[in-house]
This record gives sequence, C-alpha cells and structure tokens, in this order.
Amino acid sequence: MINQLVNMLEEREGEMIEIRRYLHENPELSFKEEKTAAFIADFYSGKDVDISTEAGNGHGIVVTIEGKKPGKTVALRADFDALPIVEELDVPFKSKNEGVMHACGHDAHTAYLLVLADCLIQLKDKIYGTVKVIHQHAEEVPPGGAKSIVEEGFLDDVNAIFGIHVLPMAPVGTVGYHSGYSFNGRAYFKLKVKASGGHGSSPHKANDAIVAGAYFVTAVQTIVSRRVNPFNAGVVTIGSFDGKGSFNVIKDSIEIEGDIRYSNDETKDVINKEIHRIVSGIEELFGVSCELTYEPDYPPLYNDPELTTFVANTLTGVEDKDITEVKEFPKMAPSDDFAYYLEKVPGSYFYIGCTPKGVGEPYFNHHPKFDIDEGAMLVAAKSVGHVVYHYLNKGKDESGD
Amino acid sequence: MINQLVNMLEEREGEMIEIRRYLHENPELSFKEEKTAAFIADFYSGKDVDISTEAGNGHGIVVTIEGKKPGKTVALRADFDALPIVEELDVPFKSKNEGVMHACGHDAHTAYLLVLADCLIQLKDKIYGTVKVIHQHAEEVPPGGAKSIVEEGFLDDVNAIFGIHVLPMAPVGTVGYHSGYSFNGRAYFKLKVKASGGHGSSPHKANDAIVAGAYFVTAVQTIVSRRVNPFNAGVVTIGSFDGKGSFNVIKDSIEIEGDIRYSNDETKDVINKEIHRIVSGIEELFGVSCELTYEPDYPPLYNDPELTTFVANTLTGVEDKDITEVKEFPKMAPSDDFAYYLEKVPGSYFYIGCTPKGVGEPYFNHHPKFDIDEGAMLVAAKSVGHVVYHYLNKGKDESGD
Amino acid sequence: MINQLVNMLEEREGEMIEIRRYLHENPELSFKEEKTAAFIADFYSGKDVDISTEAGNGHGIVVTIEGKKPGKTVALRADFDALPIVEELDVPFKSKNEGVMHACGHDAHTAYLLVLADCLIQLKDKIYGTVKVIHQHAEEVPPGGAKSIVEEGFLDDVNAIFGIHVLPMAPVGTVGYHSGYSFNGRAYFKLKVKASGGHGSSPHKANDAIVAGAYFVTAVQTIVSRRVNPFNAGVVTIGSFDGKGSFNVIKDSIEIEGDIRYSNDETKDVINKEIHRIVSGIEELFGVSCELTYEPDYPPLYNDPELTTFVANTLTGVEDKDITEVKEFPKMAPSDDFAYYLEKVPGSYFYIGCTPKGVGEPYFNHHPKFDIDEGAMLVAAKSVGHVVYHYLNKGKDESGD
Amino acid sequence: MINQLVNMLEEREGEMIEIRRYLHENPELSFKEEKTAAFIADFYSGKDVDISTEAGNGHGIVVTIEGKKPGKTVALRADFDALPIVEELDVPFKSKNEGVMHACGHDAHTAYLLVLADCLIQLKDKIYGTVKVIHQHAEEVPPGGAKSIVEEGFLDDVNAIFGIHVLPMAPVGTVGYHSGYSFNGRAYFKLKVKASGGHGSSPHKANDAIVAGAYFVTAVQTIVSRRVNPFNAGVVTIGSFDGKGSFNVIKDSIEIEGDIRYSNDETKDVINKEIHRIVSGIEELFGVSCELTYEPDYPPLYNDPELTTFVANTLTGVEDKDITEVKEFPKMAPSDDFAYYLEKVPGSYFYIGCTPKGVGEPYFNHHPKFDIDEGAMLVAAKSVGHVVYHYLNKGKDESGD
Repeated sequence: MINQLVNMLEEREGEMIEIRRYLHENPELSFKEEKTAAFIADFYSGKDVDISTEAGNGHGIVVTIEGKKPGKTVALRADFDALPIVEELDVPFKSKNEGVMHACGHDAHTAYLLVLADCLIQLKDKIYGTVKVIHQHAEEVPPGGAKSIVEEGFLDDVNAIFGIHVLPMAPVGTVGYHSGYSFNGRAYFKLKVKASGGHGSSPHKANDAIVAGAYFVTAVQTIVSRRVNPFNAGVVTIGSFDGKGSFNVIKDSIEIEGDIRYSNDETKDVINKEIHRIVSGIEELFGVSCELTYEPDYPPLYNDPELTTFVANTLTGVEDKDITEVKEFPKMAPSDDFAYYLEKVPGSYFYIGCTPKGVGEPYFNHHPKFDIDEGAMLVAAKSVGHVVYHYLNKGKDESGD
Repeated sequence: MINQLVNMLEEREGEMIEIRRYLHENPELSFKEEKTAAFIADFYSGKDVDISTEAGNGHGIVVTIEGKKPGKTVALRADFDALPIVEELDVPFKSKNEGVMHACGHDAHTAYLLVLADCLIQLKDKIYGTVKVIHQHAEEVPPGGAKSIVEEGFLDDVNAIFGIHVLPMAPVGTVGYHSGYSFNGRAYFKLKVKASGGHGSSPHKANDAIVAGAYFVTAVQTIVSRRVNPFNAGVVTIGSFDGKGSFNVIKDSIEIEGDIRYSNDETKDVINKEIHRIVSGIEELFGVSCELTYEPDYPPLYNDPELTTFVANTLTGVEDKDITEVKEFPKMAPSDDFAYYLEKVPGSYFYIGCTPKGVGEPYFNHHPKFDIDEGAMLVAAKSVGHVVYHYLNKGKDESGD
Repeated sequence: MINQLVNMLEEREGEMIEIRRYLHENPELSFKEEKTAAFIADFYSGKDVDISTEAGNGHGIVVTIEGKKPGKTVALRADFDALPIVEELDVPFKSKNEGVMHACGHDAHTAYLLVLADCLIQLKDKIYGTVKVIHQHAEEVPPGGAKSIVEEGFLDDVNAIFGIHVLPMAPVGTVGYHSGYSFNGRAYFKLKVKASGGHGSSPHKANDAIVAGAYFVTAVQTIVSRRVNPFNAGVVTIGSFDGKGSFNVIKDSIEIEGDIRYSNDETKDVINKEIHRIVSGIEELFGVSCELTYEPDYPPLYNDPELTTFVANTLTGVEDKDITEVKEFPKMAPSDDFAYYLEKVPGSYFYIGCTPKGVGEPYFNHHPKFDIDEGAMLVAAKSVGHVVYHYLNKGKDESGD
Repeated sequence: MINQLVNMLEEREGEMIEIRRYLHENPELSFKEEKTAAFIADFYSGKDVDISTEAGNGHGIVVTIEGKKPGKTVALRADFDALPIVEELDVPFKSKNEGVMHACGHDAHTAYLLVLADCLIQLKDKIYGTVKVIHQHAEEVPPGGAKSIVEEGFLDDVNAIFGIHVLPMAPVGTVGYHSGYSFNGRAYFKLKVKASGGHGSSPHKANDAIVAGAYFVTAVQTIVSRRVNPFNAGVVTIGSFDGKGSFNVIKDSIEIEGDIRYSNDETKDVINKEIHRIVSGIEELFGVSCELTYEPDYPPLYNDPELTTFVANTLTGVEDKDITEVKEFPKMAPSDDFAYYLEKVPGSYFYIGCTPKGVGEPYFNHHPKFDIDEGAMLVAAKSVGHVVYHYLNKGKDESGD
C-alpha cells in the first residue's frame, strides 16, 4: 500500500500547488476563516468519510477515515488561518485580501493534507485502523482552535497525533525533528498598580505608583536570573509600562503588560508562581494595591520521545528520493497550539524544510516576504504518509499488500 | 509722614477692594495680561511719575517714585497674572473669563500696591530716596517675568526689595515672616532613553528601554536619600514614565519627565549634578543612549536675615490696630520668581494672613474655591508702608515730619 | 539676689576650672562612672540639701535645693560620662584613664553646675521655689540615663527644665538657642534575612539571601526619598551588610545593621512604619524570612518655643560683659537624651560657645583633639543662673532684693 | 584485533579493581599528586613506549603508543587527582590520607586506562596509527592540568581525543553521550567597590559603598534575564557580599565575589562583556571606583557532533554483553577541563554508568559517600577500546585481522 500512496502523492503534486495558491490568494484571519473552511468542506464533499464542521470554537473541520482493517487511530493536523500582515511578496497568487497574508505556511499545510487525506480515503480498504484529519482554525491567536477541539472530544479515541510545520531553516528535502519540549509555551499578564496621586513637591502626602512599578520591573528580573533552572528557557518581558502623566504630578496608578515564555511545564509553574509572589511583595513593600491578570495560553509543546524517535527512524529508513536528510532541529522560541493535542495524546510535531531555491538567507515565518519552495508540500505529504503507514502497520501482517 | 500714610490707606480701603474685584472679574493668563497691564498703566496716567511699560519679557510695568529728599532706593513688587482654573467660587465678581481665575491672590497684591503707590506719590516731598513699584506679569509660568525685569536692569540701582503674598494659613491681622531660604526652587527634566526594540521572546536580540528606565527610577531615589543634606529639602519626582507599548514587543525607547525641588542653592547644585551623573551611569550600565533636558527655573527664595529681622521688628514695633500678630511662618514648598529679585538685591518676601472670616479650614492658593478676606489688603498696604518708611528713614532726621 | 549670684560665680571661676580638670583627668565610661559619682556626692556632702544617689539606671545624682520662698520647681541637668576615645590632646590634665576621654565637654558641664548649685544653696533664703540639680550619668550610650531618671519620678513635680551643651561652633561669649525640634532622634535596627543556600551553578535550587538583601537596600532608599516630608530631616543608613561567603556558594542568610535619624516625631513614626513594611515586603517578594530588631533610642529633642524665647530674651536682656552674643543656632544632626526630659516637661536646651582662643577651625565634639576654652564655664554658669533666676522670679516681688 | 582486546580486558578486570583500590586508598590533592604520578610512571616502566613525565604545569604523564601500521593519532585521557573531602564511605580501601578522597571517580578513570593502555601496547603490531594516553593531574582545581598539556604541544599531532567520566546517573552497562555543548564553562570574579566613609547621620558627606554594591547586585540580574539567549544556560551568582561594618558608620568599601556559568562560548562572551559594562556603569552611577578581577577558567565543553554520533553508533553497533544501553544524557551543570582538549582537537567526552548495585538513590560525585560499582571500569575500558579501534581502523583493510 505504501508504494501506491507514494505514487499517488507524486502524481498529485500539481494539485497541492494549485490548492496552496488558491488559499494563499484568499487568506482569512484567525476565527474568521469562513471561506477557507467552506473550501475544505467542499473538497471532501461526496467522499466516503465522516466530516464534522464548525468543530471547536470556530471553523474547525474533522474528517474521519475509517480503514477496513482493525487497528489504532492516528490523528493528523493542519492549520488554516492567516496573519494580519500586508504581503510584500510579488507572486501571481498574492493575497487578494489586503492586510491579510498566509505568512506562516498554513496554506501549504492545508494543501498537502487535503491531497494526502484524499489518497488515504481511496486506500481505505488497505488501512489498519482509523485516520482522523484535523483541519484546524485559529492557530495564530490565543486561545487558539486546538484546545477547543480537544475539549469537544475529538481526540478521545486517538492513539497518536502527528503534524508538521514548514520552516525555511533548511532546504526542501530536509525533515527536522526534536524530542521532548520543542516549542515554548507562553503567558500574558497585565498588572495595574494603584497608589495615590499628589503634587510633585510633596511626595510624603502621596504614594508614587511609578516608583512601585519601577521596583516591580527590577524585582521581576530575578525570576529568570535566579528562579528558573538555567538549562530551561524562561523569559519575562515587560512590553508596556504605561505611566504617562504630568511631570509635576505624582501618578496614582500605572499599568504594566508583559509576555512570558517557557520551554517546559516546570518553568511555566515557576514563573507563574513567582510573578504572583512578586506582585504581593510589591503591594506590601509600597503599600499599593495591585490587580493582576495572568493568562497562560499555549503550553510548551512536548514531542513524545518514543514517537519522535519513531518518526526519525522511519524517515531515515525509507528510501525516498525526495526525503534527502533527516536531522535534529533545535528548540523553537515561538509557541504553537499543537501543544494542546500533545497534552492529550502522545505524538510528534516535526519540520519540513522549505527554503526557496537559490535563497541564502530566507525570510522567516511571519515576515511580509515569507516564501516557500512549493516542493516542500510533496515532502510533507510523503513524510506524513510514511509515518502514518508505519505507525498503523506496526505488528500487522503486510504480506498481502 | 507715616501717620499721614496710614490715614490715607485707611481712607482708601474701599478703593483697594473695588480694584481687586475688577481684576478678579477680569483675570488673564501669564504672558497674556494685556488688559490688566493696560488697566494698571491707566491708573498711573497723569500722575507725576516715571513709568515703563512692556518691561521684561511681557507686560511688566515699573513705576519710579522719586522722593524729594536724598536717600536709598527701595523696590516693591506685586504680580498680576491669573491661573488656568475654572472658578468654583460664587461671588458677584466671579471671573468673566471662563477657565481663568485669580486663585492665588495676585488681584489683591496688585490692588493694595496701586493704592499704596498712589499715596506715596502724593507724599513724594517727604520721602527720602526712591520707591520703585514693580507690577510684574507672569509669576505662575516659568521662565516667569521677574528674571527678565532683573536682566533689563530695573534693579541695578535698588538697595532692597520687599514683597508680600496673601496666605490663608492665618487670619487677617497676622503678618508672617521667614528668614533665609523660604520658598523652594525647582527644575524640570525630561529624559529620553533610547535602546533597541525586538520580540518579547528574544530579549538577547534587543535592548530593553523599559528595564533601563526602571533602574533609572530606582537609582534616582538615592539622590534624596544619600546625596542631599538631611537638613535641606530636596525632592525628585518622576511624574511621567511613558513606556506604553505592545505587551510582547520590547520597547526601543521610553520617555521620563520629572519635577525637582530644593530649599537652597547647595541642594540645587547637588541634585543637578547627580541627575546628570545617574543618566551617564544608566547609559553605561545598559548600553543605551540618553537625551537629557534639564531646566532649572525659579531658584530657592532667600530672604535676607537682616532685612527680615528688620521687617519683623518694624511690624512688631508699630502700634497698629490692624496688625495684630507678627510671627515666623514655616518654609514653603512652592516656588516664586520673587527669588530672582533676591538673587540681585537683598530683601524680604513676607506673608499676609487672609483666611476668610468664619472659615475653619480655608481653601489654599490654586484651589478653585480659593478665597480671601479683603481686609488683608489694608494690612498688606500698611505693613509694606511701614517697612518702606522705616527702611528709607533709617538714620534720617525725622524731626520735621 | 541675681547680682550676688553673678558675683559669686565670677569669684569661683577658678574652682570651676579646677573641678573640670580633675574630671578631665579621670574620665569614666557610660554606666561605669563610679568615681565621678562619688566625687560629685562628696562635693555636696555636709551641705543643706536633699541628695539622691544611684538615681536612674546607674550612678545618677539628684540634688534638691528648696528655696525659702514659695514658687515653681525648675530642673537643671549636667551629664558626666566620658567616651571610649584615646585622647590626642596634650594638656597637663590629660586623661589618666587610657582609652577614655572627656571629648564631649561633660567635664565642663558638671564643673559649672556644681559651682552654680553651691551658690544657689547659699542663696536659698532668697529663692522662690525649688531648684533640682540633675547630675546625669550615661548620656553617650543608649538607653542613656535620662529616661530612667524620668521614669523614677524625679521630674514629676518639675515645671521646667534647662540644660546647656558646650559647642565649639562659636567663641566664648556666644550663647545659641534653637526653638522646636533641635537635635535628631535616632533608632537602631538589625535585620537577618534567612533564605536557603545552594551551589552557585544552580540558583533555582536555592533562595539567594544576598539578592534579597540587595533589593532591601534599594527599596529602603524610598523611605527618605518619598515618605519623609522634605522639610523634615530623615536618614536611613545601612552601615553593615554582612554577606561574606564563598564565591560559588549561594548564601543562606545575611545580616544587615542600620542607623536611623529623624528630626521630629512625625518622621520617627514614618520611618519606623516604613522599615517594618519594607521588611514584610521583602519577605513576600523573595519568599525569605526576616528577623527584624528595631530599637528607637533617644527621641528628637524638642525645645519648648515659649521657654526658648524666654531664654533668648532673658540672655539678650541681661547686661553681662561675659555674654556677648545671643543667637539662633541651626538644628543638630546628633542626638542627646536630654530629649527625654523635654518629653516630660517643657524646657530648653541651649548652647555655650567654647572655641579655644585663637583657633580658626576647632575640633568638634567626639574628636580625639576636642578642646574647649575654659572661660565657657563661667558663661554657662551665668547664663543658667540668669535663666533660673528670671524663671523663678517671674511675677514675684523683687523689691526686697 | 578487537576481539583480542576485548578478551584481554575481560581477563584483566581484577587488575583494574586492584589498581583502583590502591589509588582510592592513597588519594592526593590537585597539583600535589606526586605518589600517584610515580605509581603511574612505574606501571609503564620497562614497557616499549615513549613516556613524558611532569607534563604540563604539574605531574602529568603522557604515554605514546605507536602502532606498527600507518594511521591517525588518537588521544585518550584519564585524570588522577582527588578532592579535599573527608571520606564517609566505609570500605576496606578507605582513604588513608585523612581529608582527601577520590570522590569523583578519577581512581577508576586511571585504573581502566592503565590496563587498556597496557593491552594496546601488547597489540601494537596490529594498530593503525598512534594512541596517546594522557594521565592528567589537577582536573579539580583551576587552572587545571589540561590547558598546560595542550600548551606544551602534546595535542599538536592528534586527530581526535576521547575520554569518559563515571556517573552514578545510570547503572553499570549504560553508556551516555551528549553532542555539542555538554558541560558548562565558568568564570570567577571579584569586585572591590571603593567609595568614601562617614558618619551614618550625614550621608551627604560620604559616598556609601553598600548602596553602590546593592545596586550592582540588582543590575547584574539583568544579564541572565535580558542578555543571555534563553535557550543557553547562563548563571551569575554573587556568593559573597562583604560589607560588614559598624551600624552607624557609612562603609567606604565593600568586596563582592561571584561565580559565573555558561553553556557555550556565545554566553561566555555575553556575560564577560556585560559584567564589565555594569561595573563601569556603577562607577559612573555612584561616583565610586571599582577594581574588577575577572578570571574565566574552564571553557564550555563541546563534544564534536560527528565524533559523538560516531561514539554512539559504534557502541550501539558492537554486540557486547557488558554494554547494555547507549543513550543521550542531558547537559551537565559542572565544568571539566577536558574542554581545553576539545578546543584544540575534535573529540567526545562520554559517560559510563556506575550506580552501585542495589542502590536506588546514589550519592553523586563530590559527596563524602560517593561510591561506584567497580564493574563500570570494564565497561569504560571496552567502550573506549571499541571507539579507538573503530576510529583508527575506519577505511583500513581489516581482512588480515
């Protein structure tokens, strides 16, 4: 069956490109992907599969392909939302939705997975177990789509999940993997410090919110410098200190907003606890009252070591002219809500090199000039195809294939 | 002569009130006191005195009353600008210039001095020396009017200067004095901290202006706590910390504005030097670049001890039913550009109690409900009259009077 | 009577000098003044007065001189302890008690007061009321002797108290006074910060006491810079930060000691409250536990304005060739336990100029070369004599004198 | 040949144990390993090899085994110094040198390598190329022995170097590896802050060294929190803040000592640069002068990825009953001067599990109860033997073996 699948994918590479260009030309923002979702649903229309639309807290679509033979259930995910970026790339299929752009490659993710899913549907008779295809909305904007899809139970009967992200860190043909914690998790916080105002010449009659806020900023530095395990990544950035006022009036309140990153759950917990403690400390230290909003969103993404080794060994083992290198990639600073699936079931999220041909220093994801080599889609489809096949067929009799 | 003067003042108290009410009803902002200046100039019109209009950097008026007998030159000053305050006092002569109010008593200052000056003009033949009457514009807004009047040479031939301020800290009849440094001086500063922005998840690729600014705020506290003589008053208030931004973007620059107060020249110099040093230190500490604007405006006001004792003793010594108490007042936190005159010539700036009758907790200067007991003007006129008389007549033969 | 007293004092100036030299040669440390106390008691031996020895928490002596005529009770105080200083002054009566020195003039205080007391004893018949002479031990070392003398009730029947301090800020003949708060009060604190140690390479497994202590130091700066009224004097000095350890071991505890000064009770209360708050804040901020010992000792010394004016006017009014100038002195940074008496009864503590003749820049109190012009004792005796006389005789019939 | 070597090692396991116990019983401190070095030299005495004694800055010994066949040169290293620890382990071969203990396993390192070297000497005829055996002194105490051995040129003709460390993180049979940066580098610093002392009540006349030091501590936190790449490990610990003094005297100088760790050269450079900058900043900020001693010692240890993969694959590939598992180990917080060899030539430093049998929670290296399973030596000898053989024989004709 795997040879058949590979042949089918190679034959339909053009279709992947076509779909990807259509999506690229018609990007939609997170939670507003109505046309994109309709396009996807339409693709499956009339095919012999079960399809759930409006899955999760938005326009998610989950397609269930039940193989004829008994076996495990594996899920695949591709995200399909775009970004609020004015495209600066000059291509014939440039965004027609001004100010919105597929600058993260979700168009390619969706395109390869549609074609791969269709091939798997056609090969249903030979499949052991079930393949759930998750076309996920709203990856870019917290709370994201993944969490709600998990909450609605779509992963309850799933044994493992796989997904890929195109990355211009490597050329087409390279597949990257990373075991364990791989993408940072993150949290957002807002702190309002309320003190009491007064005239600049009489500080003793007031309580200075700017001073309390400044000491908060200096105290917060100790979280990363002293509380976080040096071998883990942790970041506390204060992006906004809103204390604008009149030069000679003591501010009665200020507002701080911050961005928090962590490479694993241990660090997530440490930072959460310490931010809360420091806020209490500042209240006591300066006699101010604080309002803290602390909102963790995407968790650190944890690739199951066993399944990641499985992915790496599988793709190293297959002899496929399009998969030229399989290697470890470093940890990633950004966050991805694929992490929610991995909290529910084991799996692996891996990387498909996509540097455009001839480009030495490619533009990265989220850049207005972000671009991919479209050959990456075939690599993605084949890689995921191999992984699914070997995962479901492990221990099964393949002689009849 | 002094008895004559006292009688004349008592007879013309009604005129003082009338003038003050006219001015109160027609307040004008600092540097925009055209009608007020015209009213004053008109008052002197046709009188036998030398008058300079448009004195200094605005609508100042200086009137020179030359006595017939030889002697010293003494200057008197009353300010005549109003404040950008919406009057909340319900009086028949409420401000007709909406949003502008004589909420600091400059209307009363001007009213008493016009009448006193007119009396002195009538008594010219008996006066030893010269009286310069300074009707000063723009006391409320730096750079103020005083500095420019000094720079134009109006005090070059003056031996001493006196002035008063009405204060609701005491009832009508009380005269207050303070020797040495009496009003705080002040400075303004603006600091722009320029670093370099970046994404919140990657602090090592940026240079965080909010962090540099926060450490600046904490370092600045040491100026008052460790550098200023504990027996002097010094204040460094940061009234504005403008670092508003996006929570997950590292700020590339922030802007801080501050208000500085000092009770004497030593402290003025210490704070000036230390602010500059700390700014250089922050540049080095964080590798940021700073733009500092530091503008001292009104200096600390220094009452000559000898002349202040002279004022206190003179007013304690006169037996005048309207001057019921003469006592020391504490130092004042605000600033007054009378300080510039006192940098040029010795003198004393003293206080005339004006609590409205029957009011236990009066509204202070600059409050929208600030009010005075109009009897304070007669006390002011008599007090200044006594002081001028005794100052000019010291050592003169008064037998013929 | 006053003329008699003045004559007697002038005649016995030599005796004052003799006594002072004896005391100077035999100095004793605070709370250990056995011989000095015996010398004083011996002086009064056989005289017609009531004498209490071992008064207060040490070797204090209180002598009660009851006048024959009815009247008020006035107390006088001289302190008699010395300092742990190696004398560097080369005089014939240099300290024979190596390492102990009368470097603050208490020898002179005691000498003048013994002679003055003896004269008053002789004039008892003419005195209205009672004079209590307090020879006080242990002024230099908290808790001092004054507090305990007050607690034992010696001031319960006293109407007013006076005392003097010799100061080399002015030449012999000058008497200084200051109304209201005049000497700073002070407190001592010790703070132990207990965290948990660990290896320098793994801060996340420890809790760093040095870091918590350093933030404490920076936070403490805001007490003086923001909490204390700028017109009051307040000082928080951290004199000791004991965090010595091994470079690569995280300290589990550190100890901080500090010195606090305040010019009045308002500031005393503000600093006390804020130190405690900041300690709580640091506990919360860093999750450490703190032990704070906070010990206020001498309060700010408050000279009663009415009695200070009385002293100033009395001494200005007497025509005495030895009292050449009476003037206001500035506030003093040090502390004196005379403040405890003034918390109990009104009074005034004033200053006797003592710059040695011909010295331009005298050594100040507590310097190993501190020296006085011995003529200051006669000025002290006369000044206090005048004050006592006029205080007790106010409103009395002096005609028969 | 490899089978022969394996057999020889198995036969001589008892000798490894004997040697290790002798060394364990006779530990010597770094740079003082005279008897240990003599013992080693004696071992090689009479054998057909070139031996250098007193290599490097101490008692290092380098033995050169020249194979008969042409080929590359590979170096092997074992360290032989002990630690200043009082042994708490109760074994028959307990340290006879009270207060000194082989608590890091260097006894086992040396024992296995002596036996392995002797076997290789006997197999010289069959060896392609050369094996350099480095018995290194003074690993535990900077500057260490490795650096000086490199400086003396012993690695100039070496193509690759390998070494092992016994670790109780895994049982006997497990071999661990880590590619890239694997052990932290470190630096030491001492900072003297010189200000000017004074009395606690008069901060304006002094310059407070404790305050400057405290702000230094808070500023230093920003190095790790904002300057170091979150995915790298960086630590700045201030282990000593020596500011002990009298509570009421402002300190004129304080001394700070610190420990710095970094996982790679980028972080090494960042911290070095920032510490220097912050010191300059503090000088400017507070007008103090600083003396900074900054001494990097062991660099981050970088295992060549290619050779590490080679080690992992070789040991995974051999079928040896004693090597039961080969797996990735995490990065290590400590430092090792093997890093200097790896700065000079590529190589890999890997780990030999040694948890004593039946122990659930073993004591770690440097603990007074540190213990090993002596079976680890045979695993070490075999593993290094396999690596050397395969490294030298790569591309060679092995048919004749």
